[in-house]
Order: sequence, then C-alpha cells, then structure tokens
Amino acid sequence: MSCFSGGYLRDKTDMSVPAITDAKCVLEEKKDEGIPDLPSGPLDIYRKRTSFSWKDMMRFLEGDEIIAFKQLVFRALESDPLFARQPGEDVPVEQKRELTFRRCKQLFKYDFLTRDDAMQNPWKMTILSDCLGMYDWSLGAKYFLNQGMFGATVVSTGSQRHLKFVKDIEQMMTFGCFSLTELSHGSNTRALRTTARYDPSTQEFVINSPDFEAAKFWVGNLGKTATHSVVFAQLYTPDGQCHGLHSFVVQVRDPKTLLAMPGVMVGDMGKKLGQNGLDNGFAVFHNLRIPRENLLNKTGDVTPDGRYVSPFKDPNKRFGASLGALSGGRVGITRMALVNLKLAVTVAVRFSATRRQFGPKEDEEIPVLEYQLQQWRLIPFLAAVYALEHFTRSFSMNFVEFQIGLLMKDKSDRQAELGREIHAMSCASKPLGSWTAQRGIQECREACGGHGYLAMNRLGDMRDDNDPNCTYEGDNNVLLQQTSNYLLSWLQHKQEGKGRIESPLETVNFLEDMSSILQSKFTVGSVEECMNSAVPLAAYKWLVCFLLGESQRKLFHEKSSGLGDFEARNNSQVYYCRSLAIAYIEHTVLQRFHDLIKDEQTPAALRSILGRLCALYGLWTLTNHMTILYQGGYFSGRQPVDFIQTAILTLCGQLKDDAVALVDVIAPPDFILNSPIGKADGELYKNLWSTVMQGKNVLERPSWWAEFCSDKPAVGSFRAKL
Amino acid sequence: MSCFSGGYLRDKTDMSVPAITDAKCVLEEKKDEGIPDLPSGPLDIYRKRTSFSWKDMMRFLEGDEIIAFKQLVFRALESDPLFARQPGEDVPVEQKRELTFRRCKQLFKYDFLTRDDAMQNPWKMTILSDCLGMYDWSLGAKYFLNQGMFGATVVSTGSQRHLKFVKDIEQMMTFGCFSLTELSHGSNTRALRTTARYDPSTQEFVINSPDFEAAKFWVGNLGKTATHSVVFAQLYTPDGQCHGLHSFVVQVRDPKTLLAMPGVMVGDMGKKLGQNGLDNGFAVFHNLRIPRENLLNKTGDVTPDGRYVSPFKDPNKRFGASLGALSGGRVGITRMALVNLKLAVTVAVRFSATRRQFGPKEDEEIPVLEYQLQQWRLIPFLAAVYALEHFTRSFSMNFVEFQIGLLMKDKSDRQAELGREIHAMSCASKPLGSWTAQRGIQECREACGGHGYLAMNRLGDMRDDNDPNCTYEGDNNVLLQQTSNYLLSWLQHKQEGKGRIESPLETVNFLEDMSSILQSKFTVGSVEECMNSAVPLAAYKWLVCFLLGESQRKLFHEKSSGLGDFEARNNSQVYYCRSLAIAYIEHTVLQRFHDLIKDEQTPAALRSILGRLCALYGLWTLTNHMTILYQGGYFSGRQPVDFIQTAILTLCGQLKDDAVALVDVIAPPDFILNSPIGKADGELYKNLWSTVMQGKNVLERPSWWAEFCSDKPAVGSFRAKL
Repeated sequence: MSCFSGGYLRDKTDMSVPAITDAKCVLEEKKDEGIPDLPSGPLDIYRKRTSFSWKDMMRFLEGDEIIAFKQLVFRALESDPLFARQPGEDVPVEQKRELTFRRCKQLFKYDFLTRDDAMQNPWKMTILSDCLGMYDWSLGAKYFLNQGMFGATVVSTGSQRHLKFVKDIEQMMTFGCFSLTELSHGSNTRALRTTARYDPSTQEFVINSPDFEAAKFWVGNLGKTATHSVVFAQLYTPDGQCHGLHSFVVQVRDPKTLLAMPGVMVGDMGKKLGQNGLDNGFAVFHNLRIPRENLLNKTGDVTPDGRYVSPFKDPNKRFGASLGALSGGRVGITRMALVNLKLAVTVAVRFSATRRQFGPKEDEEIPVLEYQLQQWRLIPFLAAVYALEHFTRSFSMNFVEFQIGLLMKDKSDRQAELGREIHAMSCASKPLGSWTAQRGIQECREACGGHGYLAMNRLGDMRDDNDPNCTYEGDNNVLLQQTSNYLLSWLQHKQEGKGRIESPLETVNFLEDMSSILQSKFTVGSVEECMNSAVPLAAYKWLVCFLLGESQRKLFHEKSSGLGDFEARNNSQVYYCRSLAIAYIEHTVLQRFHDLIKDEQTPAALRSILGRLCALYGLWTLTNHMTILYQGGYFSGRQPVDFIQTAILTLCGQLKDDAVALVDVIAPPDFILNSPIGKADGELYKNLWSTVMQGKNVLERPSWWAEFCSDKPAVGSFRAKL
Repeated sequence: MSCFSGGYLRDKTDMSVPAITDAKCVLEEKKDEGIPDLPSGPLDIYRKRTSFSWKDMMRFLEGDEIIAFKQLVFRALESDPLFARQPGEDVPVEQKRELTFRRCKQLFKYDFLTRDDAMQNPWKMTILSDCLGMYDWSLGAKYFLNQGMFGATVVSTGSQRHLKFVKDIEQMMTFGCFSLTELSHGSNTRALRTTARYDPSTQEFVINSPDFEAAKFWVGNLGKTATHSVVFAQLYTPDGQCHGLHSFVVQVRDPKTLLAMPGVMVGDMGKKLGQNGLDNGFAVFHNLRIPRENLLNKTGDVTPDGRYVSPFKDPNKRFGASLGALSGGRVGITRMALVNLKLAVTVAVRFSATRRQFGPKEDEEIPVLEYQLQQWRLIPFLAAVYALEHFTRSFSMNFVEFQIGLLMKDKSDRQAELGREIHAMSCASKPLGSWTAQRGIQECREACGGHGYLAMNRLGDMRDDNDPNCTYEGDNNVLLQQTSNYLLSWLQHKQEGKGRIESPLETVNFLEDMSSILQSKFTVGSVEECMNSAVPLAAYKWLVCFLLGESQRKLFHEKSSGLGDFEARNNSQVYYCRSLAIAYIEHTVLQRFHDLIKDEQTPAALRSILGRLCALYGLWTLTNHMTILYQGGYFSGRQPVDFIQTAILTLCGQLKDDAVALVDVIAPPDFILNSPIGKADGELYKNLWSTVMQGKNVLERPSWWAEFCSDKPAVGSFRAKL
C-alpha cells in the first residue's frame, strides 16, 4: 500500500487506493512528539467520565504523521506575530484583505507542503487546507485559488508552453485566479458570453466582454491581487465559427505595479457576507489582445493561420472535458464544510458542558449538556462530524485514485465509470456537507444563547464562511440533479438489459437487488435492537430504491402528459429526484461508517463509541425521511417511530459523557479555534470576560459624547416638516 | 369600535378588541395621497399576469391611515441626509454606533408618534417599529429600549415618584436601558446575584456585584450611551432577609459627560453577529449607593427604617408580577421576525423573477421563478408572511386589550385568563416567528445564489439581525415549555372535572372535543379537495390533541419510573412537549388566517388569492409533522402524502404569477429595502453593477501594492524554522 493515507487507512486494502510502489515515504515531520495533554479545568468532570481514550481516537483517525504535520502548521501560525489576532476584533474589509495577502505571502515562505511532499501523500493537501481553514478560510482560499485553482487548471488543461505561468505563480512573481462565471450567468456556464476571436494577422486572440452583464464576476483573488487569470470565453475562428467555451491565460494587471492592463477594467466587488479577507472581483475586457499561445490547448487549439483543431469531435465532450478540471472542487468543499462543523460543535459542546442553568434543587445548577433537549440539539451534529470525517477522508482517496488514472492516461472503462461515480457522489456530498454544516452551526449558535451571538466566539464567522459552500462550484439544488440523473441512468441500464448495476466504488451495487429490497419492511422488535447502524442502513437501502422507482415513474408520467424533457425534469425534482440524491449520499456516508465499525482493523476499544455515533447519525438523518418510509409501506403502525425516537434519545444520553472527549479529538488548539467560550480549559466566564476587557475602547466614553451631552434634541421640532 | 386597528380590523367585532368609546380618532396623517405606482421594468411581465390588485390588498391589510403613516415615516428618512447610506458599505462598529445614536436623536426631533397618537392607535407603535426595523433594527432597538423598555418598565413597575425618570428620557436629558441578565445567568433569572442591601442610616440601597460572573451583561444601550438603567437585584433588608428580585433605577453615567459614575464599571461588550449599531454593554457595581426612592415599588417597598412591605404575600407571585412588564416583548419580537422575512422574501422573489438561467430551448432562458424547485423554496415563505401578518396583527390587538385591562386594574377572571393565554401564545409565537424567518432568510440567501452572498444585497444583515430573536426575551426552546405547560394544565383541569376548556381568545377551545377529534382521520379524496385550508386545519386539530395526550402520558411515565418533577419534564420535551407547543401555535396562526378568509368582510376579489396562501401555509407547515400523523393513525396508506405534496406544488405553481405582486404589497420603498437585486424596477443587473461601481476604491490598486510588487517571498525560506 501507498503511504499517502494518514491514519487508519494506511494499511487497508479495501479502499481502492492504488499502490504507488515506487514512492518513497518522506516523513520529515514524523518525529511524533505526542499529543499534548489538555489543560485542567471545569471540563475535567466530563473528561473523567469518558468511555474511551481521546488520544487513541485521534491516532486512529489521523495517524502520527498527520498529527505531527498539523501540529507543525498550527505551531508555526501561533508563533508568528503576523498571524496574531484578537477574538471578535472589528477589522475593516480593506485591512482584512491586506492582512490576508501578507499572511498568504508568509505561507510561501513556510511552504508547508512542497510539491514532492504532496505527491508522496496527497492527503496532506487536504490537511493543510483544513489547518488554514480552521484559522481563516479567506487565507486558505487565497492561497489555494492561486496555486490550486489557477495552477492546476493551467497544468491540466494546458500544455508544455504554459508551464512558465505555473512557475511564476509558485514564486509569487505573478498571482493567479480563475474566471468562469459572469454577472448574469453562473449555473448555466454554456451561456457565458465573453468572446475570444482569433486574429491571424497578429496571431492574437481578442478577448471581449460584449456588455457589463458579461463581466467576469465573483472571481476570488481578482478584486485586488491577481495579475493573471484563467478566463473562459467562447472561441471564434476567423471563419466566424464558434467553437464553444475555451480557457485562456489572460494578464489583467501589471505585476510590477498591480495596475490594470490597458483594455481591462478590473475591480473589487465589495463586501460579502463572509470570507472578506478574500478579494473577489470582476473584469470587463475591451478587445484585449493576448498571444495565440495563451489558449489552454489540451482540448482544442487554433493554428497560426486560424484553423481550429481538436482531439475531440463532439463539442459537448470537449466542453465536458474542459470543465473536468473543476471536479475536485466539490470533494474539497465537502471537507471544508465538515471543518466548519467541527469548529462549531467544539465551541457548543464545551460551552454546554460548562454553562450551568437551573437544576433539580434550588441551590444547584447543572450543565446545560445534561438536558436531553440540549443533547438532542447538539450530539447528532457531533455524530455527523464523525460520519463525515470518515466519508470525506475515504472519498478523497477515491478522488486521488481517479486523478492518478488521469495522469496515467488510463483509458479503461473502470476509469471512466469511476469518473462518473465520483461526479455523482460529489454533486450530492457537497450539498449534504454544506447544508449539514450550515444548519449545525446555526444550531450551535442558538445553543450557546446570547454568548453565541457575540462575534468573539466566532460562530458568526463560521456560519458566514461556510455559507458560500452551498453556492459555489454549483448551487446545491442544481447539483443534486446530476446525482439523480446518474442513478436514473443505472436503473435504465438495468431495465434495458445492459447488464448488472455495478460501479467501481460500489455505491450503487445494492440497486441490483432493488426488487427484493423493495419487499423488505421494518421488522425491528425493540429499542435496543434499533440502536444499531444496521437498522437505518437497511432503511436507507429501501429508501433509495423506493425514491429511484418513484422518480422514474414521475418522469415518465410528466413526459406522457405531454411535457418536454426540460419541463419533465423540472417537475420531477421536488419530493422525487432531489430527495433521491440526498438519500443516496446519506446512504453512502452511512454505509462507509458502518463498514468501518465492522472492520477488524478498527481497534476494539473504539468500536463501541464509534458504533453509537454511527447508529445515531443514521437514525437521526433517517428521521428526515420517515414520511416516505410510511408512504411506501416500509413503516407501518407506530412502533417504528417510537423505537427510533427512543433510540436517538437513548444514544444522545449515552454519548453526552463522551461528548467533551469527542470534541477534544477534533478541536484545533485554542489559538486556532479563537473562541473564548470554546477554549480547552473550559473556563467559560474567565475567558469570556477577559476577552471583553481586552477589546478596544471598552471602558472609554464614545468619541461622540458631546452629541449626547450638549445640543439636546427639541422633541417634535421636525414634525412640521413631515 | 375603536379606531386603533388599522385596516381591515377596524370595523370587525370578533377580534375581542375593546371599545374605547371616548377616544377621538386623530388622523393627522390621513391625507391619503394614494399608493404610488411602481416603476416599469422587467418585473412587468409578472405584474401583468397577476390575479388581483396589489393596491387593494395593501389597503385591505393596512388601511389608508397606516399606509399614510408608513409613507410619512419612510419619506422622512429618505429625505434626511443623516439617514443616507450605500448598500453593502463597510462601516466600522464604532462608527455604526455613532451613526445610530445620531439617527436616534433625530427621531426625537421627528417624534413620529406622540404619546397621544400612540394611545389613540396603539397599532401605530408596531408600525413605527416595523418602519424603523425595515431601515435598520439597531436604530429601532436603540429608540425603543430607551422609551419602551426603560420608560415602560419604570411606569408599570414604579410609582408617581419615578415619573421624573421617564420625563428625562423622553427629552433625552438622560438615556435609559434595562439590566436583567448577568454574565452567568440568562434563562434562570431567579439565580441572578446582583444585590441591593438597604442601609437605613443613609436611607440608601447599596448595589453590588459579588464578582464578574454577576456583571450585568448583554444590556442594549448600556455599552456607550445609557446614563440610567433599570437594574434587577436581590433585595436585602437590614435584618438580613432576602426578598427576591426587585428593580431599581440606577444612574450609571453622568449625563453631563457620559463618564461612568464612581462605583460603576460600565462598558461595551464588543462586536456582535448583527445589530452592531446598538451598543450592548455590561456593568459591575462596587457597592454603589442609590436613594431609597429609586426602588421601583409597585410590587414591594422598603420603609425608611428598613421594613419590607408588599401588596403580595407570596414572593412567587411578586416575582411573576415584576416580570410581567416583559410580556409584550415576545409579541413584538414575533412581529420583528416577520418584518425580516418580508424583506428577504421581497429580495428573493424579485431576483427570481428577473434572473434567467437555462431554458427549454438553447437560445431562450427563463426566469428561475419558473422552476418548480425555486417556487417550492420561496413561495411557502411568502405564504408564511401573509399568515404571520394576520396573526401578529390580531395578536397585537389581543395584547393591547390585555394592557388596557392592566391599566384599568381589571381583576376579573377573564383578565387573568387572558394573561395566561397571551403568555402561552407569545412563548410559542416568538419561536415560530423567529425560526421561520431565520430559515426563510437563509433559503432566500441561497435562492439568490452568489449575488445573495454579496453584502450589498442585505440578506446577510437580515439574517444576522434576525438571529437574536431566537434568543433574547427567552431562548426559543426554553420558552416552548411555558406553552406546553399551559396546554397540559388545561387537560388536567378537564380531567379533574374543573369545567370546560375555554379561553378568552379561544385558542384552546377545540381541546374540549379532544376525544372525538382523536377519532377523526384524513379522508380527503382528491388533490383538489386538499387545496383548502380546512384540510390542514383539521389535521392540526388532531395533531395538537394527539401530542397533548402523548405529552401527558410521557410525563406520567417518566414520573412513574421514579424521576422527580424536574427530570420528568426535561425528558418529555423532545418529540413531545416541544412538538406540542409548536403544533399549537401553528394551529392558532392557521385558524386565524382561515377565519379571515371565511369572513364576509374580506373582499371577494382577494379571497381567492388569500385562500391559496392560507392553504399553502397550512399544508407546508403540516409536512413537518406528517410522521406523527402516520404514527398516530390519522394518516394511513400513501394517498395523504401524495395528495398533500401535489397540492403544495400545485398551489406554488398557481401562486408564482402572483408572487411579484404579493411582495409589492409587503415591500418597503427601495431606499428602505436597500438591496440592488430587490429593487422595484427589477433592473437586476443594472442596479447590481452600478452599486458595485459606486463602492469605495473599487478600481484602485490596493494601498499595499508594493507588498506584492517588491520584496518577493523566498519560497520555503522559513522551512528551517518549522
């Protein structure tokens, strides 16, 4: 096995991770200095009650190499004054952008992950993104949009002649960004209107925005910093023919001055709901001329005399291939959302374990975590963190396998099928992850009461920074259609007698038994029996099969009532295809978690706690679909709901004494978490109070005091003006 | 009938609004200049398709007097340069506080609503709050915390000797706030630890905070502005006896200088997630001496020689009475949340009607509002706006009736029962309103895609400003227990043979028929039949009865298994009491809306559209409870769900052509809405683009350009330090 899977995946052979036999594991950081103990304090009460070793859990999930790597990154940030900050400080947007740029520049100096390191263990790329995101997503985004998004796109869609652009951004001689969406077009990328007309007389492309509605818009790094952009435009040859969307490297600013190039109007879109350290921008091109060679020519090229040549015959395929470079984004976003949920759950659980309010006796208050209601609000999200942790990790491995196939120019059917499956999975995992995080963060905010509403405790930033995960790289609701289309195509495949339903990652294989699964019923006889992930797993299999059949029927019905394909699909989303896609990915996440617990290599001492988390996650997400389970007859009578609800509450009760340890496993150091009420020492009020006192002008009278003290308003004096 | 109910409620006799026979209706603003037309533009397509007159709807809902009053307020703000602003501008917190203070001071000059006007038509108080909130909630909060919260508390819990304090704040000679919660106590107010010990030698109270955890915390206006506060503290007489929580007027700053008084450490809590124009603050008292007369003495007083005297024998009753002054807050918050939802839905519907993406043909894109999925995401929230509009309005009337009873010292059983019922309703309506708005705003944000994530479009501010509605004046989840307790007490009342279940506002009367209701089933035979609010209404009656019975059984079960009262209640919230309270208030909202449509005085031309909104609201909220309907046997087989889902989608489809007109009714003028993508002219891209261009330093290179252009980072130069 390769060494690039940190932690428990390293020695496993069932994750479909290809062996890189000639890779030497360079573990520079692998001087495991151990996991430091957490400070003693009010959280000790819970930490003493825990049923497992949090350090063992961390080692199992991450592995020593990754633990050491994370510590190295976190320590570097904490030790560097440039990364210092004060919880809740009010930093103007302009200053945020400057700070983020300077910190980004510092990351070049740290160069935490060299290209070789990343090749040896691609998982470290994700971990570095986790670490930077836990600190501040704007910084992570700024860094990776340049190196990852711009750099990777140029490498994967360009050719030898474009490598200079990559080298320049890696040295920060230039700074890159990625311009796809326009003011009036996002989801419908085919309708983008920027043009690139080839002029053979000068051997240049003329990039033009027909009007402001075709301005490139929402481009990260373009607002203030980028000098170069990958720009998507409709390519026209001199014969007037349009060859569809192609990408070009376009210089938008002069790297010597950061002033806009003539012919480019480039600027900053202004303040966003979050991630304001990142400068999102726009660009309007006024017949800007760029060299012919700047066309990223992997899927199509123009000869000096203006003929279009392409290895693809079908423009649709070419379009698909050129957008293929985007496919990793959704895998990454699923993980980013999880990281946000980790931060929020950490804050809310530590707060709930130390905040006392009311109690059975007059003079004794109990931690709010002792309330069943509070457990039910928070602990399922903690279970979701563990479920998604395993899913995003194993899914990232799958994606790496796919990328290696691309690099190796693997033309096998399996590789093609793997691409389709990963596309379908990521189009649903991004919605699942981002929505789970968005709802979870909001619940955590509310569960921390008023103190959750103080900016210094960071729940607002978490929510605001997570929010765009629901939108970029494809709107969640639009993406889900891709997943349901994939599943429907498998059903059709089977019905047309084209063979078994079987995919490389086996996420659809159970559909082969669809008819027998649809005969199954909920037959659990007790609450105890229900507290096993096999129960929701079986229900999910039925659910996906049922929704798949229903979706197909609904589509047929819409078409047979005279609607075209477009309308029929639109009218089959709500309650059908959309629910199908969500159920499918929830099943996949649950199946993988379930398999992990059954796995012999999972340490016996952790299996019990992981089993509870898995069962809770499965039952809790299943409650969103119970209506369908009744509708289709999988449930009948009141027992199923009674059992499941009781099982959920019982599991929450069993897990509450472990909740603090479970967040200790996922929490970053206090400096990174940056939330007084979420600190590891649990000194809730001391930390909160001292942070308030450290604020700016806390006790000072306001500068405008005279506005109050003199010049009193004459009440009603303006009424005559009304 | 009195004249204080704007619009359609004015001439109705079934709303239990008492007659104020001697009140003269002074309608200064009632020179109805009509409702101005909206500008022509891309929204015309939908406006032409609408099935009703939006102006007639506005007149029906608001009445000419209120329409004129709103126009007057809105026009004044728009005409006053002090209220000018730029969408999405980045204003530092300190400057926000200054601006909000100055605007607040300006409101004293406008004095939009004199005390007499407010007495004549109390509904105008709510409308003024709506108007200011639509502009900026910080401003509304700052203004009303001083006059409403401080002023009203002093009036209602003090006596003649305190009227000087009210006069001073009304002239802005002083500025007031309301200090109840402490750093370590919010929900459990009885455990507050600030003390007020009486010293007969100087006839003073000594106010003291035992430690920083007892600092008054989260007090609006206290951060920078307040000179006086109502402070809640445990009252001790010289004999050492504690008489429980009482309120005192405490001077915290010198009005001449805005400097803190000796013995008070008062300051600003810092940045919050939203409402940053409001200065929330804290105060620590170091044995501060205040005159004996500053005790607000309605419920208890201390004689000069230090004896405690009270009209209440039972300290519990005294406590309840002193907190009674808070009861209006939740009624108001329900309305505030609705106002936020109105703003968000306006933006999202206008955006969706003008944003085009994809279409049935290659060269023709359709508005995203045409997609069933988008309709299903947004139109139910629009229906919720109309349902909650009627509910909050009629509920406010109920509350006014109750207040008049208080003023008239009404000691009748009806008055007492009315108080209990309003308490129970408001403890559930605040959660319903604030959560509906919070979810709705998030859905609107996502439905506007990336453009919804731009600060200038204001959906972030709406969400952030609405968020505390879930928390203050009682955490939503904690409050819901009050409502379920109320319902359970009625059931017990009946079971103990103490008489019929009958309440002044009739929200519980149907429980009298509980046993027959529980026999009922869903018997609807078609989708068409389902599209009537009577269908969800009947289901809700069953649902409330079922959950009431189940909750009682659950409580008995917990107690009989040996738990104390405290634990038994805690373990009966999730899936039982909490669901019961939510179902009860949803039923009440739906019942009132349903009754409105059946009412003869509702114009025939509006009844059809209102009927659709009502049916949609009822069916849509009911979908959250369908599992219970199956669990308890009200539903069986698949037809109920099939019918309801189809009915919801059909209603969405029927309403989509009316959606733009429906938001025209509820939308404030563009200046107030302050959202380029939500402007009434529907020129989505022009408005968005021009606002981007009007931003600060949009095209300028960043001030820190040299940081990029020179001093390039040596890649990896810090690796040695790691």
